[in-house]
Amino acid sequence: MNDDHNRLRLLRAGIDTYQQPVVYMHRDCPVCRSEGFSALTRVLMRCGSRELVATLNVVTDDWLALDAAALSEAAWSALAPGSEAWATFEHPEPAASAPALRAKVFGQRLQEPDFLALMQDTLNNRLADIELAAFVTACAGERLDRAETIALTRAMVAVGQRLDWGAGPVLDKHCVGGLPGNRTTPIVVAIIAAAGYRIPKTSSRAITSPAGTADTMEVMAPVALDTASMRRVVEREGGCIVWGGAVRLSPADDVLIRVERPLDFDSDGQLVASVLSKKIAAGSSHVLIDLPVGPTAKVRSTAAAERLETLLRATAEAAGLSLGLMRTDGRQPVGYGIGPALEARDVLAVLRGTGDAPADLRERAVVLAAALLDLVPGTPSYPGRQRAEDLLRSGAALSKFLSICEAQGGFREPQAAPHVRSIAATRGGSILDIDNRRLAKIAKLAGAPASPSAGIDCRLRLGDRVRVGEPLFEVHAQTPGELEYALSYASTQTEVFRVGEEP
Amino acid sequence: MNDDHNRLRLLRAGIDTYQQPVVYMHRDCPVCRSEGFSALTRVLMRCGSRELVATLNVVTDDWLALDAAALSEAAWSALAPGSEAWATFEHPEPAASAPALRAKVFGQRLQEPDFLALMQDTLNNRLADIELAAFVTACAGERLDRAETIALTRAMVAVGQRLDWGAGPVLDKHCVGGLPGNRTTPIVVAIIAAAGYRIPKTSSRAITSPAGTADTMEVMAPVALDTASMRRVVEREGGCIVWGGAVRLSPADDVLIRVERPLDFDSDGQLVASVLSKKIAAGSSHVLIDLPVGPTAKVRSTAAAERLETLLRATAEAAGLSLGLMRTDGRQPVGYGIGPALEARDVLAVLRGTGDAPADLRERAVVLAAALLDLVPGTPSYPGRQRAEDLLRSGAALSKFLSICEAQGGFREPQAAPHVRSIAATRGGSILDIDNRRLAKIAKLAGAPASPSAGIDCRLRLGDRVRVGEPLFEVHAQTPGELEYALSYASTQTEVFRVGEEP
Repeated sequence: MNDDHNRLRLLRAGIDTYQQPVVYMHRDCPVCRSEGFSALTRVLMRCGSRELVATLNVVTDDWLALDAAALSEAAWSALAPGSEAWATFEHPEPAASAPALRAKVFGQRLQEPDFLALMQDTLNNRLADIELAAFVTACAGERLDRAETIALTRAMVAVGQRLDWGAGPVLDKHCVGGLPGNRTTPIVVAIIAAAGYRIPKTSSRAITSPAGTADTMEVMAPVALDTASMRRVVEREGGCIVWGGAVRLSPADDVLIRVERPLDFDSDGQLVASVLSKKIAAGSSHVLIDLPVGPTAKVRSTAAAERLETLLRATAEAAGLSLGLMRTDGRQPVGYGIGPALEARDVLAVLRGTGDAPADLRERAVVLAAALLDLVPGTPSYPGRQRAEDLLRSGAALSKFLSICEAQGGFREPQAAPHVRSIAATRGGSILDIDNRRLAKIAKLAGAPASPSAGIDCRLRLGDRVRVGEPLFEVHAQTPGELEYALSYASTQTEVFRVGEEP
Repeated sequence: MNDDHNRLRLLRAGIDTYQQPVVYMHRDCPVCRSEGFSALTRVLMRCGSRELVATLNVVTDDWLALDAAALSEAAWSALAPGSEAWATFEHPEPAASAPALRAKVFGQRLQEPDFLALMQDTLNNRLADIELAAFVTACAGERLDRAETIALTRAMVAVGQRLDWGAGPVLDKHCVGGLPGNRTTPIVVAIIAAAGYRIPKTSSRAITSPAGTADTMEVMAPVALDTASMRRVVEREGGCIVWGGAVRLSPADDVLIRVERPLDFDSDGQLVASVLSKKIAAGSSHVLIDLPVGPTAKVRSTAAAERLETLLRATAEAAGLSLGLMRTDGRQPVGYGIGPALEARDVLAVLRGTGDAPADLRERAVVLAAALLDLVPGTPSYPGRQRAEDLLRSGAALSKFLSICEAQGGFREPQAAPHVRSIAATRGGSILDIDNRRLAKIAKLAGAPASPSAGIDCRLRLGDRVRVGEPLFEVHAQTPGELEYALSYASTQTEVFRVGEEP
């Protein structure tokens, strides 16, 4: 074929389409005409030694020249063209995993090579968003069995890098999300590292919540470390709390999240594969999973917790992981703050042992750290609980935390928001229920996590009594506009706190 | 809330994103900042009395001003803003059908109100492409049962217009696709209308094939008629052959096709709902379905045909439709031409009764017209087969076809392609197999259907003998580039025709 027919020079479109690579071409350009491309066609681009499959959006007016193709931000960074670069364009062969995807959609069980092909194609952008959505849907409900969950987990690990820390235990903890303010990770990591163990913790940014652990940690220290920097921190301090996105453990899972987030289908099999593939890739040997259970938490019932635990255990066993599982109270927020800086303030108060430290956050962190310490074989006759308490009380955990922050690039104090307003109770009585989801939504409307100091400060707990006009919680915001926006929503949500008398 | 925070002026982006509405906003614009919008957020826009939910793509450089939002072609035509128009932007409430979608994904059976909510939201762009993909996937395989298929069909009809032709039978025919060149519809419509019956036929353009009936018909007459024009043609001539896209019967189905096309999941339930909802909405009372069966046709086996027929019968019965089903040979192309103009040439040859008319196309059209005539109650003791033959031989069908073309806007002769090349057999023997799918792909690479005269001309049939060097088929193209492109692919596909000796 004549090269002139399918070459275009590359421009940067300056359009963010999230992770899906998009290429813009004029409808009258020679490539669209000769290849028969139209809107949403999947297009294979080659530029130097790199290649990329992107989705076509067709330009219908003259902002794009006929000899050029413009790339979305995701396509631009994946193809990384030099200046004056050209690319060639053609129809891609069907993705190698297309038969496996079709088989799963039609209800067949898949084997490990099928999942491997699917994860490889997911990682290489060979599957479009609608195909990823089909895969996620085909696995939802009970449609991913135990053997398939194990195979999917292995496939996720296989397509990414796997860290190796040499001999000896490598600890980790994970919380199956859904509980605002439940920021135990920085405290647990500090205690475990102070105890002399390695705990190379990677955390996510918020997906649908007002703050992820990485967002909270970033208020206090840099978290966007690459693998080499992360290794340096862990080798020096034993532990780290970094953002997983730059380390790219189980990177295919990160791609799947771009459709799982908007679809919001909770599937046990995919949740297990997502969580455990990251732990296996991180080189962990002993992992504690915190499962908050409550009607507005992610795990809503004891039965749901049991199903999830069975699958977690089977998959961990297949991977040779020592797994600890701990169900915790998921009925209400933990700590006072919801939002990156407010949660960081609570974390520091616990580590510093100040009088206003939230007791529930402290207790949960100690219980989790104790369970993790007790999970490691050969621990001396010094119960985990006592050891965790000692390390926290003595200031060893605080000192370790500050050292980790320094190693990650330097500690900084969380900043308070300039705009704060209280929401008052409209009736008196006991706090009977707290709706975690609506509370999280108010914090997000106030600007969290993009505005780090934004969020909610709430000191009431189930069973506490309030009188009409007394504050239920405070909304914190960085701008008056964001404050108004959150208050306007909050004013319509009288059921965030259900106040009344016990029946 | 202050209006200034969420108002932007509207521009046309000049970007075709197929049917999915996309809105482009600068990442630093006041709306993105105050509402916390980011790439792929679903955004509710209001402009005057119209509203639309679109997907956000975030602009990261200065081609878009901070006080403006640009709309993709689909968003622009849906919102239809006047000049100097402004819109307000906010987070939409979750789609009303979100619980039904989630229930189906998790394997529950849905009721008619659920499907109604889903089709309403599909039609109103309240569901994003990944949600439509999830719905299609959740219904694939055997996951849509008989009652659900009936309910989905009814829901598709309910959200669109339904034509009413008054008393008396209204006939229709449909072919469950997959067979190149099988262009019986114009001939059947001409015979049925010449017999004095009403047959208001709407057809699709090509979705994945080298030509749809609408593409072929458009070579001979205008087909993009609106409902009023279609009604005028049918009232005058008894029949029409128009493009369904402008008439918008079962419009929610047209939206679903935007994900079904790239996903290419054939689901019996959705196929039945798609086909029959269009017939019910068209006001048809007697419908004949042609099911070509063959290893490379859409229906690949007798068992698959039986499953599909059972579901078609049950759904037609629930809707009070008289249904005829006819399985036909789907092992090889029908007629000589594949591509709009080449197929139109064959159609005219049959209607004109010229010596080079393809006998197989003529026979299929007569058999289908006969079965449709026999389906109508009270037909006199004049067998459909004889009647169809008489109408074709006498020239009554040709005359009716030309009148229909005139009523649709004027008849025109198909044009021949300027660039034609033969592909020769590389071995001699009998034609043992023909791969319909690869043959269709070569026709598409030659430019069909966008280039109407492009395609394939093929006069060999199963069992015919060829010698090395004799032509297997011709490739027709409008430009030398397209010809080269198709030939280059064809040269790698030695198995399009399997030639050898019968075992």
